[in-house]
Amino acid sequence: MKKGILAVISGFSGAGKGTIMKELIKRYDYFLSVSATTRRPRDGEVDGKDYYFHTKEEFQQMIDRGELVEWAEYVGNFYGTPKKRVEEQLNQGRDVLLEIEMQGGMLVKQQFPDSLLIFISPPSAEVLKERLAGRGTESPEEIERRLQRAAEEVKYMKDYDYIIVNDDLEDAINKVNDLIRYDHYKACNSAHLIKKMEQEISTFAARKGE
Amino acid sequence: MKKGILAVISGFSGAGKGTIMKELIKRYDYFLSVSATTRRPRDGEVDGKDYYFHTKEEFQQMIDRGELVEWAEYVGNFYGTPKKRVEEQLNQGRDVLLEIEMQGGMLVKQQFPDSLLIFISPPSAEVLKERLAGRGTESPEEIERRLQRAAEEVKYMKDYDYIIVNDDLEDAINKVNDLIRYDHYKACNSAHLIKKMEQEISTFAARKGE
Repeated sequence: MKKGILAVISGFSGAGKGTIMKELIKRYDYFLSVSATTRRPRDGEVDGKDYYFHTKEEFQQMIDRGELVEWAEYVGNFYGTPKKRVEEQLNQGRDVLLEIEMQGGMLVKQQFPDSLLIFISPPSAEVLKERLAGRGTESPEEIERRLQRAAEEVKYMKDYDYIIVNDDLEDAINKVNDLIRYDHYKACNSAHLIKKMEQEISTFAARKGE
Repeated sequence: MKKGILAVISGFSGAGKGTIMKELIKRYDYFLSVSATTRRPRDGEVDGKDYYFHTKEEFQQMIDRGELVEWAEYVGNFYGTPKKRVEEQLNQGRDVLLEIEMQGGMLVKQQFPDSLLIFISPPSAEVLKERLAGRGTESPEEIERRLQRAAEEVKYMKDYDYIIVNDDLEDAINKVNDLIRYDHYKACNSAHLIKKMEQEISTFAARKGE
């Protein structure tokens, strides 16, 4: 059976990747990987839907057993991607979306060399700053902190497979969806077709006397 | 300036790549690389449009001077791709189409690692055979010879970047065009954007006191 595509979506805070992800999930049949975390559930959050909630001990065990594709610590809590469910879906031929940070993206690429790494970028740093400020929910210090972080994250852009500029939301959604769709035509994802053609053509070519 | 994409289109004889190329050239602003050859011009063929016609001595000089991206001998005549014009167009930001055989495709990839190699395949070997027979212009021996050749060529499928099945012509044209269009979003083709973001973000992040 043809395997699914593992698509990693990353981007600066404020690049709009969350909205793009939400629309992709709503419109198409992607499997969205749910993260494991040690953070406490907030009101209304459902275990297995928003996150898989675990104790620190459980999370450490998952790390030790190699059950996470990638994990990171953020403000005292751990976040990670459970490997088993991702692999199950890929093996069933379903395309999987993973919204993670750049360092995590690099780890996914190491373990899944055929994964598709897409970086969502604003058209300019000016726009990024405006979007962060425009939310109105962040303090100047928080905006500053996110810009500092973006200055670190920008170094990973070149290591992604594709860069999609989110200038127009609808356009960006379509582009990301198309990139995943076209990834199925890669030779490395067409092993079944190649094998079929090899066998059939050699059979025909061998029947010289017909 | 952003460079153009060098797209190599290959496929079995009878896969329909010629028709796809013709439509792409007609509809879009691609530059079609014109081959150099030592074959004599046929009636109506124009030098510089259909081929660049050369003597064997001239062709040998072009080989010796490294002026050809790739070349091959076919039924006693030489065919090759002049490097200079391809590079000129790419440097001007124009996407270049190259319709060549698989061995040539491999040589192009060596010299232009960022080139995009697209393999056009019929949906099955049965269809390939039918198409070869359906032309009505080829003798059974010629069809047989082409199938033998396809049996050799099929080994190169896996080395191409993408495999497009030409089941429906219009669909195949759109897919090839989209693949080239999306190739512009590859990180390796987005150096200008990456550099701009790096500079802008670091400038913003440095202005702490504002």
